[in-house]
Amino acid sequence: MSETETFPGQTVQRLPEGPATDIYEGIRDLPVISPHGHVPVEWFVDDAPFRDPTDLLITPDHYINRILHANGVDLADLGVGRDDFSPEAARNAFHLLAEHWSDFLGTPMRLWLDAELSGLFGVTKRLSPQAADEIYDTIADALATPAFRPRALLDRFNVEVLTTTDDPADDLSGHRKLAEDPTFTGRVLPTFRPDIYLEPTRPDWPSLVEKLGSAANIDTGDYAGFVEAMADRRRYFKDHGAVSSDHSHADLGSQRLPDAEATRIYAAALAGTATDAEATALRRHLFNDQARLAQDDGLVMTVHPSIARDHDLPGMQRYGANIGADIPIPASFTEPLRPLLNEYGNNPGFHFVAFTVDETMYSREIAPLAGYYRSFYIGDPWWFIDSPDAIGRFRRSVTEIAGFSRQAGFVDDTRTLCSIPARHDMSRRTIAAFLGDLVDVGRLTGDDAAQAARDLVQTNPRKVFKL
Amino acid sequence: MSETETFPGQTVQRLPEGPATDIYEGIRDLPVISPHGHVPVEWFVDDAPFRDPTDLLITPDHYINRILHANGVDLADLGVGRDDFSPEAARNAFHLLAEHWSDFLGTPMRLWLDAELSGLFGVTKRLSPQAADEIYDTIADALATPAFRPRALLDRFNVEVLTTTDDPADDLSGHRKLAEDPTFTGRVLPTFRPDIYLEPTRPDWPSLVEKLGSAANIDTGDYAGFVEAMADRRRYFKDHGAVSSDHSHADLGSQRLPDAEATRIYAAALAGTATDAEATALRRHLFNDQARLAQDDGLVMTVHPSIARDHDLPGMQRYGANIGADIPIPASFTEPLRPLLNEYGNNPGFHFVAFTVDETMYSREIAPLAGYYRSFYIGDPWWFIDSPDAIGRFRRSVTEIAGFSRQAGFVDDTRTLCSIPARHDMSRRTIAAFLGDLVDVGRLTGDDAAQAARDLVQTNPRKVFKL
Amino acid sequence: MSETETFPGQTVQRLPEGPATDIYEGIRDLPVISPHGHVPVEWFVDDAPFRDPTDLLITPDHYINRILHANGVDLADLGVGRDDFSPEAARNAFHLLAEHWSDFLGTPMRLWLDAELSGLFGVTKRLSPQAADEIYDTIADALATPAFRPRALLDRFNVEVLTTTDDPADDLSGHRKLAEDPTFTGRVLPTFRPDIYLEPTRPDWPSLVEKLGSAANIDTGDYAGFVEAMADRRRYFKDHGAVSSDHSHADLGSQRLPDAEATRIYAAALAGTATDAEATALRRHLFNDQARLAQDDGLVMTVHPSIARDHDLPGMQRYGANIGADIPIPASFTEPLRPLLNEYGNNPGFHFVAFTVDETMYSREIAPLAGYYRSFYIGDPWWFIDSPDAIGRFRRSVTEIAGFSRQAGFVDDTRTLCSIPARHDMSRRTIAAFLGDLVDVGRLTGDDAAQAARDLVQTNPRKVFKL
Repeated sequence: MSETETFPGQTVQRLPEGPATDIYEGIRDLPVISPHGHVPVEWFVDDAPFRDPTDLLITPDHYINRILHANGVDLADLGVGRDDFSPEAARNAFHLLAEHWSDFLGTPMRLWLDAELSGLFGVTKRLSPQAADEIYDTIADALATPAFRPRALLDRFNVEVLTTTDDPADDLSGHRKLAEDPTFTGRVLPTFRPDIYLEPTRPDWPSLVEKLGSAANIDTGDYAGFVEAMADRRRYFKDHGAVSSDHSHADLGSQRLPDAEATRIYAAALAGTATDAEATALRRHLFNDQARLAQDDGLVMTVHPSIARDHDLPGMQRYGANIGADIPIPASFTEPLRPLLNEYGNNPGFHFVAFTVDETMYSREIAPLAGYYRSFYIGDPWWFIDSPDAIGRFRRSVTEIAGFSRQAGFVDDTRTLCSIPARHDMSRRTIAAFLGDLVDVGRLTGDDAAQAARDLVQTNPRKVFKL
Repeated sequence: MSETETFPGQTVQRLPEGPATDIYEGIRDLPVISPHGHVPVEWFVDDAPFRDPTDLLITPDHYINRILHANGVDLADLGVGRDDFSPEAARNAFHLLAEHWSDFLGTPMRLWLDAELSGLFGVTKRLSPQAADEIYDTIADALATPAFRPRALLDRFNVEVLTTTDDPADDLSGHRKLAEDPTFTGRVLPTFRPDIYLEPTRPDWPSLVEKLGSAANIDTGDYAGFVEAMADRRRYFKDHGAVSSDHSHADLGSQRLPDAEATRIYAAALAGTATDAEATALRRHLFNDQARLAQDDGLVMTVHPSIARDHDLPGMQRYGANIGADIPIPASFTEPLRPLLNEYGNNPGFHFVAFTVDETMYSREIAPLAGYYRSFYIGDPWWFIDSPDAIGRFRRSVTEIAGFSRQAGFVDDTRTLCSIPARHDMSRRTIAAFLGDLVDVGRLTGDDAAQAARDLVQTNPRKVFKL
Repeated sequence: MSETETFPGQTVQRLPEGPATDIYEGIRDLPVISPHGHVPVEWFVDDAPFRDPTDLLITPDHYINRILHANGVDLADLGVGRDDFSPEAARNAFHLLAEHWSDFLGTPMRLWLDAELSGLFGVTKRLSPQAADEIYDTIADALATPAFRPRALLDRFNVEVLTTTDDPADDLSGHRKLAEDPTFTGRVLPTFRPDIYLEPTRPDWPSLVEKLGSAANIDTGDYAGFVEAMADRRRYFKDHGAVSSDHSHADLGSQRLPDAEATRIYAAALAGTATDAEATALRRHLFNDQARLAQDDGLVMTVHPSIARDHDLPGMQRYGANIGADIPIPASFTEPLRPLLNEYGNNPGFHFVAFTVDETMYSREIAPLAGYYRSFYIGDPWWFIDSPDAIGRFRRSVTEIAGFSRQAGFVDDTRTLCSIPARHDMSRRTIAAFLGDLVDVGRLTGDDAAQAARDLVQTNPRKVFKL
């Protein structure tokens, strides 16, 4: 990926000559470490070609979908929530993207897609309604070649580790097949995501509890069994390569209940007689339990709370989840996490990584907590704020408070395989721009900046995620 | 308006040579579109000369008043809340401004006033106690000429559309006279502002309800009549040129009640027996009603909630409202607006523009909502944060998330006619500075930036406000 | 302190040539005014040499401690909470700092310590495990000389005023001795900090009330006596040179109770029968009382609320308070302060300075309040955000809203004497960088910027703190 455009009108992320460029050169070719994402493992198990450019770049990408939706495109016309998407419809979706190409100006999605078009597919024209067919065909031709199969792309992208996000009841057969396949040389790991099993307010919670029990072959009819099943599934994931568990609730309340009280509410929740307040108290206790279990199995805990999922309920009913309508709400970590951090926050080997989409959290709570508690690490911005300016603001806010060693590094969180190198490259350029500024004003030497950049891109993710 | 000062010591808003200046040149002379403001329509109906410089620049301007008040000036000495302000007192008020001129350094008010003094009145000296009389006389002389009458200024300022803010019971006779006056070539539109009619907790609510009924000639003794009267007045405003309704409550709660419940609470509120919780529930329902009515009449809905109005109660009792003591409180839109957005948020033709004075809202809630819902547009910063750096922060926060097409553009919100060009020029320079930066780092081409600038200044306001 | 490093690899805070450098030259040598801090008065009374470099630079500095703790160092190994710290242990603590020196990169603590090492102790090598002993010895040798005794340092640092923070029951004998000592030429003033006496939820509140009564020789068995004792101690502090009182509670609620209600709850709280809600209501009333008393005695009121003190309870039990685990929570001032500001907020002579560690407060609440109320001044960032970028963000946020005259200036808040010049120099460079930018873009003239810089460093602190 070059610093300047490779076709006229391309958007790029240029760095100033001098320290920023030097720093970038030192990290641009480091392997990609992706400890949180949503690419399906089956892609690598099957190693089948992508169906078409829309299937590759548009349909699975909620970043792209939401902008097109806001600007009047029907999600159905992008293939979202559809099984019956014809080749003509796929080509038409690409035209819709081309017609709305200017709606992406100023966003990182435009940067990433431009980088993918030029860097990956060798496109030499700016996307436009006029050029859409030609570009579509160029990509389609590439996808038909072995070089664009998932495994080849993973290799080409220099991905050291890629993680998926998985249900605790998943048998991880895909990951097992990959691990047992001598022809696969990459490293793709599962992530334990137990959220929905910890939320007794969900109408489907009793059936989830039963599903968990079945997966673990443990009776989850009472709280003790639930904990045992959880511990079992966590170990199962760990045995299949998982390094972390991932958690997203409405808040980060972490107060433990007395065991008898947890047992009582658990039974009431299964019977459908728990109050909302009791169910919430139990959820916070069960979240604390996850941290408690991590003391033994060592899974790193990542959290990203305080988001109103599926904000557009009619939209979700029509198109499904993950259509780009997860909207942040005000967050707070300091008091909700006190019980958890007082119990485990300084334990050797326990790693807790805090992500947020509420920028106010960085200097007010996240960096202060990471600047004191040994287990508490700072996650990079994600979802709406994984963009050059926002990441720059983030880095500038947290570094003064907590230094570099408490930062866990970038996660791409993507559902789109081909966006991985562009996203990580964006992060690296943003790091280089920030550190270059610090060198320019004397607050870092060039050598220190080069080391800090390598730490943020490589040393820290490896250390924090135990890779 | 020039990029450099026209008198020694003038504050200006200079742009770097290169892309920013080029972009600015492309938008500096575009007509002013002002879809939200507080200039009285009578000024244009009567077209009377302004009484004196203080009447023009100081007394009506709560931006100026609040800074002078904070620095020890009595609001009465500025003419606030007074009918008996003598010519000597007016001149003295101008001296008070001159004495406190350095208290405005670093603020946009200083930039705007310096621009008005130099650009509009040809003042060639910096304001100071020594120069105050001379400058006062220069302005006073100008005001006595036809070129400084309100209509001539509107023309000179190249104002394409100016809007007032009006009570739903207003008969809009001023707007009618203007519309029927063949000698008036401008476009001045009313805005429907029903806030106080939706707040049953107000002691004067029963009398407001009656006033609304009288204006509509509909019995508002029950909820059904109230809704009918509201619909009638909205249509009346629309028939008189209104394009939008404007709303400011303590929060943006928008949950509908069952009709029977709304009817019951409405009756109780009229009888003075509604609880505070009921009155608040009714207010949220009535706010939702405004969005519902907009599905038919098409009025654009603008909101700017979460401000403690008239924070200084003793000050309000002495000097009246709008003295600069409306102070922000923490806001949140995501959950409160869910009912409204789930019902109407993707409807064609429904436009909802969200303003805020809580900067945390931009990347956390407003841009994410605008980046998904088709009806939801992003309003520029106003009141305390309609200033170069704050607008720059705003634009940098929302653009990465929602692009340019979801931004409604700048509103001046002013009570001071002569500040309109200076305020819009500030906005345009701030846009140019931001876009110029993006061009410098490659994230926009010069052509794209020029188009984005025109969109923000002209295309988007016209589209979003249906002008 | 020079603009460029004095040893290889030193971090510095360089300013661009031009306006910023000129502005800095105009303020760099102004005396230090430190109206809020935590250096013990006994240091100046006794004027004893510091024991060793660790006792000077590490053990008392919670800024340093928290970073080392987060990175795995045991606070006991830094001397925190220990009476038995051997010379070997002290030297070892300095080695621990050296080993973790890179963990401070990007933080202001690194800037300050590098500046102290080079500027104060003439160290010419970068701190490292290899150089730790040599640097330790260099500092230790300096500390043995008269030039490094506390009084000499205060003189050398050009400190015009230094303040301590003191318990209302303190007899201020140290301050009295200093005042009576003709050989001491500095100005070290006490600060009245009554927090804990206003919090009836504390288990030790009855004994605190009694202690206050003893100090004042007034029976605090009822509310009237408590108020009288408070007034007495405030006057006592004022008579010993205090200019301000300092306040930190969970919130800034300031609603007064009817006197009979205050009397009733006070009695109930002493008897241990007050509810939590009553105790909180009484705390807010007593906080309002402090403002009421200030109308008579004129003590400036400083507040810094909304922080979870001693967040790590096990850590506090082991090492004591002030170990760096005071973590911010979301703040709000607008509504909580309304009663206080409506009563006293425009009174001549009443000064109220608002500090916060929640950056969202600056543009949303603090600057708007300061831009209207005459008594309300803006305090600079402290604790986690007293750093170059954060202070820059602060200044850029509040200046546009409230100008320069409402800003109280920097407070160092330090427990480490030798960090005072480095901290104030950081603040001055940050001011110069910000103002230089404004000059570059035309928004300030060079002369205005030079004056604004002097105001922020000298005029305003003297005025706001009545020095």
